Amino acid sequence: MSKTTSNDGMLATLSEAPTSRRNFLRSASLTAVGGALVACGSSAAPAAAKQAATVTQAGGPKPGATGGTMGPHDTAAGAGVSAADAMDAMHEKGIKAFPAKTAVYGNQPMPPKIVKGVKVFELTAAEMQWETAPEQFVAALAYNGQVPGPQIRVTEGDRVRIVLTNKLKQSTALHFHGLELPNDQDGVPFITQPPIKPGESHTYEFVVPNAGSHMYHSHHNAAYQVGLGLLGAFIVEPKDKSQEPKVDQDVVFILNDGAHGYTFNGKSFPGTQPIVAKLGQKVRIRYMNEGMMIHPMHLHGMHQTVIAKDGWPLSNPWKCDTLNIAPGERWDVVVNCNNPGTWAFHCHILPHAESDHGMFGMVTALVVQK
Amino acid sequence: MSKTTSNDGMLATLSEAPTSRRNFLRSASLTAVGGALVACGSSAAPAAAKQAATVTQAGGPKPGATGGTMGPHDTAAGAGVSAADAMDAMHEKGIKAFPAKTAVYGNQPMPPKIVKGVKVFELTAAEMQWETAPEQFVAALAYNGQVPGPQIRVTEGDRVRIVLTNKLKQSTALHFHGLELPNDQDGVPFITQPPIKPGESHTYEFVVPNAGSHMYHSHHNAAYQVGLGLLGAFIVEPKDKSQEPKVDQDVVFILNDGAHGYTFNGKSFPGTQPIVAKLGQKVRIRYMNEGMMIHPMHLHGMHQTVIAKDGWPLSNPWKCDTLNIAPGERWDVVVNCNNPGTWAFHCHILPHAESDHGMFGMVTALVVQK
Amino acid sequence: MSKTTSNDGMLATLSEAPTSRRNFLRSASLTAVGGALVACGSSAAPAAAKQAATVTQAGGPKPGATGGTMGPHDTAAGAGVSAADAMDAMHEKGIKAFPAKTAVYGNQPMPPKIVKGVKVFELTAAEMQWETAPEQFVAALAYNGQVPGPQIRVTEGDRVRIVLTNKLKQSTALHFHGLELPNDQDGVPFITQPPIKPGESHTYEFVVPNAGSHMYHSHHNAAYQVGLGLLGAFIVEPKDKSQEPKVDQDVVFILNDGAHGYTFNGKSFPGTQPIVAKLGQKVRIRYMNEGMMIHPMHLHGMHQTVIAKDGWPLSNPWKCDTLNIAPGERWDVVVNCNNPGTWAFHCHILPHAESDHGMFGMVTALVVQK
Repeated sequence: MSKTTSNDGMLATLSEAPTSRRNFLRSASLTAVGGALVACGSSAAPAAAKQAATVTQAGGPKPGATGGTMGPHDTAAGAGVSAADAMDAMHEKGIKAFPAKTAVYGNQPMPPKIVKGVKVFELTAAEMQWETAPEQFVAALAYNGQVPGPQIRVTEGDRVRIVLTNKLKQSTALHFHGLELPNDQDGVPFITQPPIKPGESHTYEFVVPNAGSHMYHSHHNAAYQVGLGLLGAFIVEPKDKSQEPKVDQDVVFILNDGAHGYTFNGKSFPGTQPIVAKLGQKVRIRYMNEGMMIHPMHLHGMHQTVIAKDGWPLSNPWKCDTLNIAPGERWDVVVNCNNPGTWAFHCHILPHAESDHGMFGMVTALVVQK
Repeated sequence: MSKTTSNDGMLATLSEAPTSRRNFLRSASLTAVGGALVACGSSAAPAAAKQAATVTQAGGPKPGATGGTMGPHDTAAGAGVSAADAMDAMHEKGIKAFPAKTAVYGNQPMPPKIVKGVKVFELTAAEMQWETAPEQFVAALAYNGQVPGPQIRVTEGDRVRIVLTNKLKQSTALHFHGLELPNDQDGVPFITQPPIKPGESHTYEFVVPNAGSHMYHSHHNAAYQVGLGLLGAFIVEPKDKSQEPKVDQDVVFILNDGAHGYTFNGKSFPGTQPIVAKLGQKVRIRYMNEGMMIHPMHLHGMHQTVIAKDGWPLSNPWKCDTLNIAPGERWDVVVNCNNPGTWAFHCHILPHAESDHGMFGMVTALVVQK
Repeated sequence: MSKTTSNDGMLATLSEAPTSRRNFLRSASLTAVGGALVACGSSAAPAAAKQAATVTQAGGPKPGATGGTMGPHDTAAGAGVSAADAMDAMHEKGIKAFPAKTAVYGNQPMPPKIVKGVKVFELTAAEMQWETAPEQFVAALAYNGQVPGPQIRVTEGDRVRIVLTNKLKQSTALHFHGLELPNDQDGVPFITQPPIKPGESHTYEFVVPNAGSHMYHSHHNAAYQVGLGLLGAFIVEPKDKSQEPKVDQDVVFILNDGAHGYTFNGKSFPGTQPIVAKLGQKVRIRYMNEGMMIHPMHLHGMHQTVIAKDGWPLSNPWKCDTLNIAPGERWDVVVNCNNPGTWAFHCHILPHAESDHGMFGMVTALVVQK
């Protein structure tokens, strides 16, 4: 996110919200944002919850699972309350942990080197272990140690050079998804270039042809390589910004659903990062789906005005609260943050977002501060 | 459906349609609607069909199944005709049974109690057995004994109070999907309120902020609770109705695909209810997807004009015959019933609608009476 | 495709492109199109690749598979390069084979017989073996020996007669998906007609009511029958063509994903057919999804302008590079072929298009010739 920093210092500690039932509602309006991040002490969770939590895998339940087993629900009345409390404790633990700090964040803005007027970006593809949520490590392929790779942001008409070094054990190639480039810069092995072998580098260079929210990703063994993390945002600002919406934040929001589980910008709840805005601000969100499934993104409390598809402005914007985003698509929306509070913001395929162990995967929040 | 009553007395008995091949086409125009519901006598079905029918489960075949086995198709010519007849008998049996009566219907309009100018709705969540199609009972969680829960219909600016009593063995909470409410009425445990424990009640109260086709559903262990039935329609009429389309019927059409199988308003074919209109009438359909999959809804014989997304009117309506509806989305369409007859109306993911045992799941009909 | 002939003589031999790395980029602009089809000699592929290739099934990997196994990627550095070369060889082999010739092509334009002013089309449904890619034969049900069936193209207001003869072992029926026909021509057994038994014929006759990109397909045991090939395009030209876009080619592009694997017009890569256009031409593509899954179609190098949904012109066309197409939907787009080269064109659900054995399934190319 270009104007959103990582967790430290800036974000709300949702975990500080009081949860005793007596004062919950009274203080609800105070729970939004402030102070430093406080990790949720695991000692606060009941033993039953801890035990159950160890069952949760990085990928969450398999798609289609309903996230419930009948066992605990069939207990007698007294035991039933106890099972409900144990389940609630797991749910509370996840939410109190949010936003949970992880070691490294992807999608970090990447300043170019300027070489004789050319904006030069250097990318290195390599294997790594990636932390999607606290202590959830997955095997990843990453550009510059980030999943998603660093965010490239240039302007229409810029001359750019991207130097990709392949430190993988497989060949690879780089496709600029959405850019209408000369054919030999399109990055498809055996059609527009040979594959880039392990240990080799390849240089792409072009004048940026069309504005919008685009992506870069591997186009070789791509179901595997993109699924494991070889992807990033390629944002092109228009030369003429007079038609652009005036916004206070410009957020890139990349969806994925492969071997890393259900992720937003490479992270799973509670490791996802909230969007934090001041009351009255406008936030532009650039959704990009790099996964294999649709994800209908539902924002609570405020609607989304859809302004562009695949980087092309819509002459007729439309409003929604749930925007369905298919693989390869990009949709730009603007949210007018006129409703204060902490708002759930999640994929509405519910098994991508919640199990009986609590929220996981494709869940974050939009925090509107008074 | 606000203006559509349950089966008795009103709907066509499709099962009365003559099916001997000699007079079928001659009398086809007479088969539309009239008389009382006549259950399809099971004695009419060949033994082979009956035996096969017992294989059909509430959920129908698994998504992705092609609904065919090669075995019966590989028989010799003579036996092949016989197998074809047996298959046809199963198909005919289902269609003759439609609309098959089941014990209880969901989505029934719920009149509020008016308490000092406040519209009060009382909901109780409890376990029950739900009949999706005749003798197909599934474990359900229901509001007021209905799946979907009772239909709430109010007007923009109304003050409403919803009192939810939890008779489940789990905690729960109520989210008003699409309504731009004050944060503390948003119904997300540990973010905007504590969970509502088994045996407890919780009161939501707010001034209805925005018009449109919205939903209410559980937001706690929601993949499980919504999948089992804790959902309903929350329709908000605009204060200024001058921009509303003039229609003769206003139908709510909730799609689901969880443990209950593929359902329309909680029912699977042949237990689904047709929409019955007079020639020349206009019908507004408010689609709502509470499931985990897309459902492209295909209407035969007439097109659908799409007028709103998630309750927000489209400035530029568009036409289609197949409308793709993703989880969490609502789409409003208007159908101009200008083509008389009984028209199939189904999800066009064919394994959600038909197997070699006949139609099931997401199938209903639009009956246009002369 | 009405104006696109089959492979012979016309299409580029992509397999002639030089692939030695030294001269690849230098000659890239020359590789587009020309000469006769040259099959890729299997002797060019290393033994390891050949062995691996035999694993590839008609349907490709199961949806959701990531197309990679960790085994080969975990080899030591030296062996790693060798594994990369072996993988690349498999990828190269597939692309060099494209467009690979198969015995019979579907979707061939079908000229009607004119009988007293009526356009008569005769269709025969029968079992056959269908070749989706070289030596990939699958059990199919086909109209006139084609998958998709022959392309029917008529004009609004034409009187047409379709005579369907059933040589299957099952009953069948023909639905005209998208046409607003009189009810008794709608083709739904037990609702609008009796099933057409094996050995019987049935005649449909009507005046074509509405223009657009429509389909015909079985509506009996349809998950099975359509999945195995009983489908085709039914294109209706408007009477008044003044509002039609002026295009140089008009291409029908039918997507399917059943037991035949992931196919475009009945073929899987490398058996798919490219679209070949001259620089500056405009190509209209009529997408039709006859499968069970969405397919977001991504075109490289140029955008797509969306002009119609389900045959209904959009008053407000919009642009994209990735168009999500759901089962039963038709979308018409126009591509302005202003960027020369061979452009990948594929479903962006990557496991529908690529595995670690190379591209397969829903992949083709748009070739723009200088």
